[in-house]
Amino acid sequence: MFLTLEGIDGCGKTTQARILVGNLASRFGDDAVLWTKEPGGWTGGEKIRDLLLKHGMQHPLSELFLFLADRCEHIREVVAPALEAGKIVVCERYTDSTLAYQSWGRKIPLEKIEELFRWCAFPVPDQTFWIDLPPGKAYHRVSRRGGPDRMEEKGTPFLENVRRGFLFLSEREPERITRLDGDNDADAIAGEIARRAEVLLSP
Amino acid sequence: MFLTLEGIDGCGKTTQARILVGNLASRFGDDAVLWTKEPGGWTGGEKIRDLLLKHGMQHPLSELFLFLADRCEHIREVVAPALEAGKIVVCERYTDSTLAYQSWGRKIPLEKIEELFRWCAFPVPDQTFWIDLPPGKAYHRVSRRGGPDRMEEKGTPFLENVRRGFLFLSEREPERITRLDGDNDADAIAGEIARRAEVLLSP
Repeated sequence: MFLTLEGIDGCGKTTQARILVGNLASRFGDDAVLWTKEPGGWTGGEKIRDLLLKHGMQHPLSELFLFLADRCEHIREVVAPALEAGKIVVCERYTDSTLAYQSWGRKIPLEKIEELFRWCAFPVPDQTFWIDLPPGKAYHRVSRRGGPDRMEEKGTPFLENVRRGFLFLSEREPERITRLDGDNDADAIAGEIARRAEVLLSP
Repeated sequence: MFLTLEGIDGCGKTTQARILVGNLASRFGDDAVLWTKEPGGWTGGEKIRDLLLKHGMQHPLSELFLFLADRCEHIREVVAPALEAGKIVVCERYTDSTLAYQSWGRKIPLEKIEELFRWCAFPVPDQTFWIDLPPGKAYHRVSRRGGPDRMEEKGTPFLENVRRGFLFLSEREPERITRLDGDNDADAIAGEIARRAEVLLSP
């Protein structure tokens, strides 16, 4: 079972991942759940994360290539072995972030990115929770915790485009992607995620 | 004028680059020549170089993606501005290394890699010097200076395939790629490179 959490910085992905992983671990045991993230969730990932989030890439395609390299290694080293061992994998950010940021944000054609996804044969999540929060509100939250990183610093017009990307994807794949209202309080969002996860995990 | 040096580790690229750059600088001035290399020849390049040459990528595609990200940034930050300023750029390793190692070495289809090159619109070198040395001899030289890095450690059967790649490319583009016999002594090779460069740089 492969679950992903998506949305712009400040929308509450980590908070919801913590609650979801806690619930799943209580029910199935600590060893049955793996909590990971992209970019950077593997042994060499910190260097790629530094390049993307601190140094910053100047060329839109090099940003895309770094995310893809990161994902190839993350899947091979971390996600695929866990899925093969029957674990529930909860991953913060995945392919939908790449599509929303690199295509709607950086204007790389969607079909090019999806062609590369096919080359890489990335596993498709069983369920994706998209926490939709208006960029202005997300920015306010992120500012309180130390300011935006390089990916988000282009500001709200850029993030409005990213949001349109997530919206398009959630409408294209409504069964896989559940939209959650990030304006609701964390417990309400967690309740929605738990109910959806319950359905998926029912025998 | 964009000149590249290619060949497996230990073939003598850096030695020849030093001589060529010295000659060009004597003739046209230090400011007229830029000596650079891939991977890693830009401000964030050391992290990518570490990932490729020390950490090592497990997935062939992630290796390719890192080389492409490195090149996009290297071209944009270093090579293109120098070429636009009318400088002579001498670069150790470039697109031919990616084709030889990633396609002949790691078995990624050539046309996929070349499709990505087209997306990236990488500039084509005016002349490429391929220093062809049998892998056994190259390995011996590399061992004396501290051993092979992650890219070369697969040994001579892997490097024989890479060599076949360089051979194919030099036969496909004989005008652009000059093959040099790496068994000759450094001065003889330098003489050949100087003569070819002289022709290219004649008004």
